[in-house]
Amino acid sequence: MLLPPDPAMRELLDRFQSIVKTDPEILHLYSFDGLRIPHKPAAVVFPEKPEQIGTVLKIANKYKIPITTRGAGSTLTGGATPIKGGWVIDTKKLNRIEIDKELRIATVGCGAIVANIQDEAKSHGLFYPPDPSSYQHCTIGGNIACNAGGLRCVKYGVTRDYILSLKGYLASGEFVEWAKPVRKFATGYNIRDLWIGSEGTLGVVTEASLKLIPHPETRKTLLCGFDNEARALTSVLDLLSTGVTPSILEFVDKLSVKGAQKTVGGSFFDELEDPAVVLLEVDGDVAQVERQLQIARDWAEKYSDAFTVAANEIEAEHLWTVRRKCSGAMYALGDTKLNEDIVVPLSKMPVLLETIDTLREQSRVPIAVFGHAGDGNLHVNIMYNHQDTDMTENAKGALDSLMKKVVELNGAISGEHGIGLAKSHYIGLQFNAQTLQLMQSIKQVFDPNNILNPGKIFEAYSPWDHLKIEHKFPWDKAK
Amino acid sequence: MLLPPDPAMRELLDRFQSIVKTDPEILHLYSFDGLRIPHKPAAVVFPEKPEQIGTVLKIANKYKIPITTRGAGSTLTGGATPIKGGWVIDTKKLNRIEIDKELRIATVGCGAIVANIQDEAKSHGLFYPPDPSSYQHCTIGGNIACNAGGLRCVKYGVTRDYILSLKGYLASGEFVEWAKPVRKFATGYNIRDLWIGSEGTLGVVTEASLKLIPHPETRKTLLCGFDNEARALTSVLDLLSTGVTPSILEFVDKLSVKGAQKTVGGSFFDELEDPAVVLLEVDGDVAQVERQLQIARDWAEKYSDAFTVAANEIEAEHLWTVRRKCSGAMYALGDTKLNEDIVVPLSKMPVLLETIDTLREQSRVPIAVFGHAGDGNLHVNIMYNHQDTDMTENAKGALDSLMKKVVELNGAISGEHGIGLAKSHYIGLQFNAQTLQLMQSIKQVFDPNNILNPGKIFEAYSPWDHLKIEHKFPWDKAK
Repeated sequence: MLLPPDPAMRELLDRFQSIVKTDPEILHLYSFDGLRIPHKPAAVVFPEKPEQIGTVLKIANKYKIPITTRGAGSTLTGGATPIKGGWVIDTKKLNRIEIDKELRIATVGCGAIVANIQDEAKSHGLFYPPDPSSYQHCTIGGNIACNAGGLRCVKYGVTRDYILSLKGYLASGEFVEWAKPVRKFATGYNIRDLWIGSEGTLGVVTEASLKLIPHPETRKTLLCGFDNEARALTSVLDLLSTGVTPSILEFVDKLSVKGAQKTVGGSFFDELEDPAVVLLEVDGDVAQVERQLQIARDWAEKYSDAFTVAANEIEAEHLWTVRRKCSGAMYALGDTKLNEDIVVPLSKMPVLLETIDTLREQSRVPIAVFGHAGDGNLHVNIMYNHQDTDMTENAKGALDSLMKKVVELNGAISGEHGIGLAKSHYIGLQFNAQTLQLMQSIKQVFDPNNILNPGKIFEAYSPWDHLKIEHKFPWDKAK
Repeated sequence: MLLPPDPAMRELLDRFQSIVKTDPEILHLYSFDGLRIPHKPAAVVFPEKPEQIGTVLKIANKYKIPITTRGAGSTLTGGATPIKGGWVIDTKKLNRIEIDKELRIATVGCGAIVANIQDEAKSHGLFYPPDPSSYQHCTIGGNIACNAGGLRCVKYGVTRDYILSLKGYLASGEFVEWAKPVRKFATGYNIRDLWIGSEGTLGVVTEASLKLIPHPETRKTLLCGFDNEARALTSVLDLLSTGVTPSILEFVDKLSVKGAQKTVGGSFFDELEDPAVVLLEVDGDVAQVERQLQIARDWAEKYSDAFTVAANEIEAEHLWTVRRKCSGAMYALGDTKLNEDIVVPLSKMPVLLETIDTLREQSRVPIAVFGHAGDGNLHVNIMYNHQDTDMTENAKGALDSLMKKVVELNGAISGEHGIGLAKSHYIGLQFNAQTLQLMQSIKQVFDPNNILNPGKIFEAYSPWDHLKIEHKFPWDKAK
């Protein structure tokens, strides 16, 4: 094989020929992630050992080659898109999972699939709770990069809450370890938690030790229908004030329920024509679940317009379809989605819905809302047809107003997806210029040559100005 | 009043005369903390509003005056000692506590006493779990500075796990807010968690929002006696493998039990001559507690040599005396204590005890061990008489060996106290020179003039070379 003239690539191939790919099909596949906006890399590296990442970084740092570390690529933010070209590191072969049942600790490679970690833990009676919707495909490395959340956060917290320690590499290729696989660590600066959620811009994580907890014995699922969306959301606070902490507490608005009902070809409540729903689960030991279920049932009786308790797992799975199908069903409303994961204080959720009602009217684009009502973390889906310039403009205008409102309500522009490219346009709403400067000075400390996932978080990007490509990912359930 | 010639002090007094004190008695009182090694400040400031801290910092930063922020001063590490002089900021007037029952969030000033936060939360049926032993006196600001732990961490985690957001000031005096009072935040770099545990060296926290949880309904206390210390510790793993997560799981070694028994004038187990003990509590709703208690009882039956279950709160309080009295009782063994809060993986606790047995023999100094067995976070107390040069030397030698062993066992040199001055001598065991350099570069970003708590964490200090002063703090139960 002829070595290319580019000295960086020459050095990379010289060192790692068997794990470096530059075929056009592969470069295409790694040019985009769940955001579906392609920017082509020059090479993709498939390390088989963590140390190889250290060496790749050494070469990249020497020649100032952009590095995008990638798990499954299921991010919706473009966080794994190699927008500045350079090399993509695919971590999927670093997928070791070891469970220490006695210590209740999992040691995992960054490429381990979250569902596999959960299954392994469960086989030892243990539980790794974070469950982003792509959990059957996404990697723990990706979850760490964006501090992924999921459905169970209301009771169990987010990825960060389960990370004891990290191993990885600095931009220079130097090996580092942040904290230790122990349950308390108050020694030196906490760089572990600075790296978690930093979207691959401060270092590359190759291994993590995760805290596991005893697996809950059982669970019960309720689906509650509401004629009024705002009432569904205020009643969530009433439920929490009973002292019950559901393991799942999801809201699905009327438009989303309608979409899900169309997909499944039936309605979830015969007695309600156009319901919004709250899906909830309680878990724990049998006695605890019975007790919580009774309280939840009393609450549903009092606040909802109709409700069903799943008698068994099959019925529970049926109730879940409303939540599982709503995201895909959106594409009946437009071919392109501005998918946001904003957070507001729980008590502000009804105000936010009001704002969204107004935006729907003003912008004349469909906006569907569903998500983690127990956390105030709602997924707002602004739909449009990308070939329709007016509609695109209106969708973008609605998003501008939404983000401003979220910050005004003392919320967060992203709760679990991270900023990536998709939300970098709005980071200045969340932080003032001095704070952003401070964050970039931290970046400078870790990555003086700006090789790690450059262009993300801090550099404004306009996804609505880019054509999205058609691609069916394994996690696309319906589109 | 004549203004002093020092321009910094002149500007400070000019601005804040009524809240600045320079009387010798006050300067003396603020020259030391729980480490009891005095280094005198030039002034103490008593802010009544958070903004005043911003202004004090602006002046200090202009003139490069060292700033030591102080809560109650109960730290054992010297973290609140103004070792470089300058100004101490006493935060105790910033003690606002507001509970939002509906959102389960407490908004607290940095000077709020932890016990007061807990009491306020409890009056709303809510729970703030972290409980360092000084909780009746220490402030939340101090707890945030060292990421304080306490007794309930085995089930409930540490201070960090309850902090939603922080407000405060940079060294420059600029106001900042890290994250928001919401349950999910994945926007920009996580500086909140970088500040938590940074011991006042990266900024000054003036306000925090805390996550509260439903208060457990009830609890049960067991005290288990063991003839063999290592067996007590290995049995902890057996208990955890039953799936029960006790809210408290404390170990007290034979030497400490002996001291506590002498203090109370009686023995905890008539049938055991020289026991080590494990104190444990389970909490939750009544049914849960009953169920966990049964499992714990079966475990105690099988593994311990004797055990008692408290029938009521008064009996529980009696069982607790073994843990409460052991720390003060140490002073019968020496007038000076090297108080460590090391952490090792749970399975390594017996090996650590063996090491300590060897150190006791080799160094001929008393070493007592008690602490949070459920976290692997053991308090190792190396006692000596400070006027005895040989004994001091031996104590220091034992500490050197202990710290090396802890790191060799993949542990942490501090689990909940932080480094301060007391452990800065050993920070190089935990992190290599490059990592320490990286941490100091982060410090440089936040505090280019090195005014915030200078001399802590990274600069080696030898507490054994300094004379400790006699002083009775409100939290000294017995000395």
